[in-house]
Amino acid sequence: MGINVDFDDHLSHHHYQRVEIPPPKPFLKTLKSNVKETLFPDDPFRKFKNQPLSKKISLGFQYFVPILDWAPRYTLQLFKADIIAGITIASLAVPQGISYAGLANLPPVIGLYSSFVPPLIYAVLGSSKHLAIGNVAVPSLLISAMLGKVVNPHENPKLYLQLVFTATFFAGVFQASLGFLRLGFIVDFLSHATILGFMGGAATVVCLQQLKGILGLVHFTHQTDIVSVMTSIFTQIHQWRWESGVLGCCFLFFLLLTRYFSKMKPKFFWISAMAPLTSVILGSVLVYFTHAEKNGVQVIGHLKKGINPPSYSELAFSSQYLAIAIKTGVVTSIIALAEGIAVGRSFAILENYDIDGNKEMIAFGLMNIVGSCTSCYLTTGPFSRTAVNYNAGCKTTVSNIVMSIAVMITLLLLTPLFHYTPLVVLSSIIISAMLGIIDYNSAIHLWKVDKYDFFVCISSYIGVVFGSVEVGLIVAVAMSLLRILLFVARPKTFVLGKIPNSMTYRNIEQYSAASSVPGVLIIHIDSPIYFANASYLRERISRWIDEEEEKQRTSTEIELQYVILDMSAVGNIDTSGISMLEEVKRNADRRCLKVLLANPGGEVMKKLDKSNFIDKIGKEWIYLTIGEAVNACNYILHNCKFQSKRIDSSATPDDNV
Amino acid sequence: MGINVDFDDHLSHHHYQRVEIPPPKPFLKTLKSNVKETLFPDDPFRKFKNQPLSKKISLGFQYFVPILDWAPRYTLQLFKADIIAGITIASLAVPQGISYAGLANLPPVIGLYSSFVPPLIYAVLGSSKHLAIGNVAVPSLLISAMLGKVVNPHENPKLYLQLVFTATFFAGVFQASLGFLRLGFIVDFLSHATILGFMGGAATVVCLQQLKGILGLVHFTHQTDIVSVMTSIFTQIHQWRWESGVLGCCFLFFLLLTRYFSKMKPKFFWISAMAPLTSVILGSVLVYFTHAEKNGVQVIGHLKKGINPPSYSELAFSSQYLAIAIKTGVVTSIIALAEGIAVGRSFAILENYDIDGNKEMIAFGLMNIVGSCTSCYLTTGPFSRTAVNYNAGCKTTVSNIVMSIAVMITLLLLTPLFHYTPLVVLSSIIISAMLGIIDYNSAIHLWKVDKYDFFVCISSYIGVVFGSVEVGLIVAVAMSLLRILLFVARPKTFVLGKIPNSMTYRNIEQYSAASSVPGVLIIHIDSPIYFANASYLRERISRWIDEEEEKQRTSTEIELQYVILDMSAVGNIDTSGISMLEEVKRNADRRCLKVLLANPGGEVMKKLDKSNFIDKIGKEWIYLTIGEAVNACNYILHNCKFQSKRIDSSATPDDNV
Repeated sequence: MGINVDFDDHLSHHHYQRVEIPPPKPFLKTLKSNVKETLFPDDPFRKFKNQPLSKKISLGFQYFVPILDWAPRYTLQLFKADIIAGITIASLAVPQGISYAGLANLPPVIGLYSSFVPPLIYAVLGSSKHLAIGNVAVPSLLISAMLGKVVNPHENPKLYLQLVFTATFFAGVFQASLGFLRLGFIVDFLSHATILGFMGGAATVVCLQQLKGILGLVHFTHQTDIVSVMTSIFTQIHQWRWESGVLGCCFLFFLLLTRYFSKMKPKFFWISAMAPLTSVILGSVLVYFTHAEKNGVQVIGHLKKGINPPSYSELAFSSQYLAIAIKTGVVTSIIALAEGIAVGRSFAILENYDIDGNKEMIAFGLMNIVGSCTSCYLTTGPFSRTAVNYNAGCKTTVSNIVMSIAVMITLLLLTPLFHYTPLVVLSSIIISAMLGIIDYNSAIHLWKVDKYDFFVCISSYIGVVFGSVEVGLIVAVAMSLLRILLFVARPKTFVLGKIPNSMTYRNIEQYSAASSVPGVLIIHIDSPIYFANASYLRERISRWIDEEEEKQRTSTEIELQYVILDMSAVGNIDTSGISMLEEVKRNADRRCLKVLLANPGGEVMKKLDKSNFIDKIGKEWIYLTIGEAVNACNYILHNCKFQSKRIDSSATPDDNV
Repeated sequence: MGINVDFDDHLSHHHYQRVEIPPPKPFLKTLKSNVKETLFPDDPFRKFKNQPLSKKISLGFQYFVPILDWAPRYTLQLFKADIIAGITIASLAVPQGISYAGLANLPPVIGLYSSFVPPLIYAVLGSSKHLAIGNVAVPSLLISAMLGKVVNPHENPKLYLQLVFTATFFAGVFQASLGFLRLGFIVDFLSHATILGFMGGAATVVCLQQLKGILGLVHFTHQTDIVSVMTSIFTQIHQWRWESGVLGCCFLFFLLLTRYFSKMKPKFFWISAMAPLTSVILGSVLVYFTHAEKNGVQVIGHLKKGINPPSYSELAFSSQYLAIAIKTGVVTSIIALAEGIAVGRSFAILENYDIDGNKEMIAFGLMNIVGSCTSCYLTTGPFSRTAVNYNAGCKTTVSNIVMSIAVMITLLLLTPLFHYTPLVVLSSIIISAMLGIIDYNSAIHLWKVDKYDFFVCISSYIGVVFGSVEVGLIVAVAMSLLRILLFVARPKTFVLGKIPNSMTYRNIEQYSAASSVPGVLIIHIDSPIYFANASYLRERISRWIDEEEEKQRTSTEIELQYVILDMSAVGNIDTSGISMLEEVKRNADRRCLKVLLANPGGEVMKKLDKSNFIDKIGKEWIYLTIGEAVNACNYILHNCKFQSKRIDSSATPDDNV
């Protein structure tokens, strides 16, 4: 550069606060604090600190078994509220349980079993007050899609059922392990947009599947994609049964009407909550008296009386299909977790209490492990049932116990009543529930706010509807991850300018008032500098410099002499990043430019120090603020009489970061 | 909050610059600029702007065929330098070519072919002046490891050779497509640490493989992991041939000695460059006169005379092994690209010129496509040969042409001379070259500067040595990606404090002088707010507030009333992030705290605006700088007479960002 101003003199005049390197920490301590921050961000041990041992043990029990915490405070008044909510959700649980079991190609009674045992377990272990437990549509569909590929549920129902229990068992084990290992954050990688698109797609697929029931078709494709389903339907036009179709449309209309009414007048939520059971009763009575079952309207038929038989001996650990059962369990468990935890969290926020994701996972996991041994299949906390539970005024998980008992009574006494229930009513119930899941308003909101999120959502939807449920999920997760990787691989860089009457420097594109400083180029880097973006940043910085020099060549402005890299937003740097900075420095030296750093963070300073980059660039060229860095440049420009015009330094440095 | 101060009055007094929302841009324009920034970060079209068509065409030719650019300026003096360099690297290319072909289980002559055609192509298309082209060890090993699994090269050499050509063809196609599609940045995802560990591991594996040659073993394991190799060696102790071993050790010692000497005295680089050829000649002469080939020293044997025969008819597109050939091609091409581009870039930086990664990929791709049709296998720019080329003073890619011609002469006239070359000498050459690749000094540097990078490097090394080359690569890439994902999933948040005598706010942990502002908690968020970290940040922010409130409960300090979120480092936000902010706001309202935002960037402001979050939080609570936000809090605290002690507002606001 050839600038040999007495620089220390300049510095001593101003008493600048230098950029500090944080005190070194032993490696193991850093590792420990990083692991703690990654796996225990909510610091669950805080309550246990400074407590006597006996208190610690009782707190520990209360932590893992929340019922111990609130049961002593339970009152008759709470019970009154819970009993009403419990009966309301039971009236929903019975028809939904039967319907969704059909979706998973399971006997209807399995759906009822699944609404009996798991809610009891959750009532003891769960930390959400409003979640209502039961089987759900999308995982049911996933189970039949994944397991149906290897075992035909109609030809080999026993083996199929065994595999479903086995998959449920592994789903439970996986969920509980995620919770125990504090890996709950894996679920966070399913973004809201992903789940929105995925759920919408799955709901569409489920609706399409119901056309089989509505049209009374006997043969149907095993594929779930829209093309196969449509082909299957329109090649069988002559098998369509109008009796079944008319019945289905009537009930669907009835269900949608009640839902619409309840939506308009939230006080009458119970109308839509009761509608499915009403439909089942109406449909059964109608069939019983008209003998429609002999005219092409299929009915449920015989339902076994009695509560859940044990099924632990059915778990097929030595089956040749064990691998696919494990895979099914893992995939469905993630979807079930994502739904259950999202629903639980939404209602917790409404009512101002916290739920602990990892603890919920343990509760879900144990509930499914016990479920798989008592003839239940995968359960979670479905949105529709939970919303009804909430609206019905439930106060604690006791409403789940009430529902359980109601389902038990149904199993013990009322199963014969379902003999004449037409399948088409169940199809209508499923379609009506699924239409509520397709949330196009949220998709429109995504389009307005964030195009990329919308894109993720739509890809996920298209993947599910035109490909398969698994394809949609893989596409959506890959796209979500791609977004993160692209953010890091192609970080934003922009030029900063001075806000008038301040010492604040901001993006020139965002602030029309900001003006660049003659002779100085201030580049803001907006992400950590990692291997994935090191080459890009090197090229982008050199392009900024090129552009700036070109601009100045055509104007009469002072020549570019300083490049200030604003590191405020650079959270971390790795060894590739440091090499990049070294190359930028070498490149700048070649062009007779001086590189300054402004406001590098603690982590970055530590690494720059360890790699000796600070010595290479010179400690005196690293400043706490951009303002100080610009001042230093101006001071030298001024003292070396380089500049052609002076920068207005009389600005009132009043308001700054 | 219950604060009803006349806020506008306060604002009008200070004439704050408000945070601006960048002007809306049409969606397609944003998309276009994003795509351009992602795929054309180096702006290759800049030169073409404002040029007449004829000039554009000639520039276009020069862009894709760099030789057109520099050939007119080529002088006799440059040629003199290039011819010396060319002959030097030829003396290295011949023994290395033969050795590495052996590593890929190919006939030795294929190695010579591969040093003839590809360098000619690169000389025309390549933009690096110093890169010397040839076959390399690690991809050779990869080829034999991957293709050797499906076809035994000794039992079915013809099919194996066909698959190698096919894999090379697809490697070329893949490389050229990456270049044409401007996807060269995919190679950036192989971090320096990954490549270091991977190369070190592969070099170790290659060395272990050479024990076969050194010990003169006939049967050897097809696995590459250290356990299998060691088992294979130590179960055959009685088959070890001492003649072979002694000869190998002598040559290895000679080669290492010359390398050490050249390293000490860089002027004598040619000693180590000539050593392999010298070894080959010495070894051949020795075997010829002692007839050692009859005493257990294996020799190369007959080498076909003549230059490359065409091989396009050998490309096995209809083979049942096509899938594995494509897979091999893709994997090896990425490794070859990573090595070639990294080497080219290193020397370009040394000599102050730029090379264009995407253009290089096209050159590499075409070179391999042509190579696959002329009996060559995968080539790239190996480090050792390029370093020798550079030290020998090459000026342009003409040195590659000279080397090519020298290899051609060898092929036409000198192949019979290699008949008696002992394999053990080739093994020594490979070991000596590989020992140079294992760069433990860099690994130690990684450990010092960045523990995680070291961890990535070591996992990659262990994966290659104990697993397989593919396992190591997958492990390393997965770990590198995990780092990025973890950075986003678990971003740093820290509390800021005021630096005395300034209006600057910095990390309290980094700056011992920084002190927190009573009644105000300033939290800095150090990454974009995405779905992957939204729940974490929500919990972490609420923990910061808890901790702060607890601290104040035990002290006599003023009660916490304001939470300022410093958004300076938040580069972007998605819909999950916005929901998170809404929850934080609701949570704060519940605790009677006010949330303020400081310095949100343009992208973030745009999204907050579109999602109506700005209206929810109130425009007047978003500030350009932390200083302004704190001032606003203090103003209200003061006017409402809430505070117990005043903040020193007489600080000289001199130096700030």
